[in-house]
Amino acid sequence: MSSHLFRPQPLFPASSEIVQRDYSFRLSAATAVARPWFPCHRQIQAMAATERLGSRNGEALTPNGDCDCSIPEKSAPVLTNVGKSTNVAWHECQVGKLEKQKLLKQKGCVIWITGLSGSGKSTLACGLSRELHALGYLSYVLDGDNIRHGLNKDLSFNAEDRAENIRRIGEVAKLFADAGVICIASLISPYRRDRDACRCMLPDATFIEVYLDIPLEVCESRDAKGLYKLARAGKIKGFTGVDDPYEPPLNCEILVRPIDGVCPSPVIMCKQVISYLDEKGFLEA
Amino acid sequence: MSSHLFRPQPLFPASSEIVQRDYSFRLSAATAVARPWFPCHRQIQAMAATERLGSRNGEALTPNGDCDCSIPEKSAPVLTNVGKSTNVAWHECQVGKLEKQKLLKQKGCVIWITGLSGSGKSTLACGLSRELHALGYLSYVLDGDNIRHGLNKDLSFNAEDRAENIRRIGEVAKLFADAGVICIASLISPYRRDRDACRCMLPDATFIEVYLDIPLEVCESRDAKGLYKLARAGKIKGFTGVDDPYEPPLNCEILVRPIDGVCPSPVIMCKQVISYLDEKGFLEA
Repeated sequence: MSSHLFRPQPLFPASSEIVQRDYSFRLSAATAVARPWFPCHRQIQAMAATERLGSRNGEALTPNGDCDCSIPEKSAPVLTNVGKSTNVAWHECQVGKLEKQKLLKQKGCVIWITGLSGSGKSTLACGLSRELHALGYLSYVLDGDNIRHGLNKDLSFNAEDRAENIRRIGEVAKLFADAGVICIASLISPYRRDRDACRCMLPDATFIEVYLDIPLEVCESRDAKGLYKLARAGKIKGFTGVDDPYEPPLNCEILVRPIDGVCPSPVIMCKQVISYLDEKGFLEA
Repeated sequence: MSSHLFRPQPLFPASSEIVQRDYSFRLSAATAVARPWFPCHRQIQAMAATERLGSRNGEALTPNGDCDCSIPEKSAPVLTNVGKSTNVAWHECQVGKLEKQKLLKQKGCVIWITGLSGSGKSTLACGLSRELHALGYLSYVLDGDNIRHGLNKDLSFNAEDRAENIRRIGEVAKLFADAGVICIASLISPYRRDRDACRCMLPDATFIEVYLDIPLEVCESRDAKGLYKLARAGKIKGFTGVDDPYEPPLNCEILVRPIDGVCPSPVIMCKQVISYLDEKGFLEA
């Protein structure tokens, strides 16, 4: 069993006298053992007072009267218009995806699980999350239904809102991948163009489309949520597979389908995906 | 320097013969050293074949013809209507926030940095992210401007869209906190009701409001993006602090303001926030 992450001495900011002084501070006994370089609130106030004195002597003042700092000044950002958002600038943080990946010892990516209702998307997503966790990897599940309880609760199931639902989940998944997390998106996402739009948002090869190609009759016979029954009774309109089409992926990364009429178990599905992640290098920094 | 994360033997799923068999498989030499329990693609196919044979013998078939699996069957989910989303169910994954926090050795939370344009929000957010990373903690910055390049690019700066902008960032921040990440949201968020709505989304004490109470004249004199100039010239309407109000928090967790007319440096601001996180136990599982 090898060690994984460790908490190194802070690199930030090597050039600052103030922070160099931090190392002589001590917090509470328990914290001091773990992180002897952390000052407490009162010590910070003392540091601030010292800094103010320094500033008053004109040692470290910016033209705005703000104290000097060791965070390099950024050049003036470029303002752009993006969609309906006018005059927005892109702020690049110094801790990027690569650094986060090194910390987590994994590569951020999006595992996009698509298929009919009842095809086993949520089961696979949760199983994957559990297995990855047991192996020490950080993943996060974006479940289509769950996201409709929060971020996307303003969206209905009409065509336009379904597209927007998928777009937003794609954008959020992209943020998680950017944070170095293995993001597992699990939603029907019936239209090819919507899924492909999400693929296009992400850097090459980090969008891993997993298609659960389970026959409609199998999914309908499971009907864990009773939705097919409602759809067949006409109580839900536009239900994928019943009165709305499902467009299968043309080039998905992972295809899950019955062999000799037998659906693979969740265990096998999980192994198939994790093996893919391993072979493609996502399970190392 | 203590070890941090480690990758234990997989717990998943202890009861399954198939997975118990996995431990005898070996991947490529490099992978085998790190994770000897991982089967490769071909081995998975062999496992699937074995499993199919077992299934065909009627040992492990569900009534749907699907193979048995060691992932416990969930009870039928309860369908609800949430906003415009009808018939959606909540899927609870077995790896929850607590497990992720243990993995990361930190507690997920949202650091919500609010203040005028030019008050130093992005600088503080990036500095915090850098310092937390250097200490071995996983954080992620949701920058208001950056999110308007993706998730929120369909939103303008009118009152309704500003509220929606903040609601969505709040919802995304909640997801990151749920993933165990220290999420740093950096956006003007001028209205109290919008910020308080985000606070209400999150579990108690995990919404940490940081108010950069920097005088308008200081922010305007910085004007790194040239936005105040544009606003004063009437080229941007509804600009916070110029022709749109900023409502300061009434009970923020962390207040950053000048002392004796001198603004605290980014270093001091970072230390102030990290010290708070440390004292409140967010920097341990």
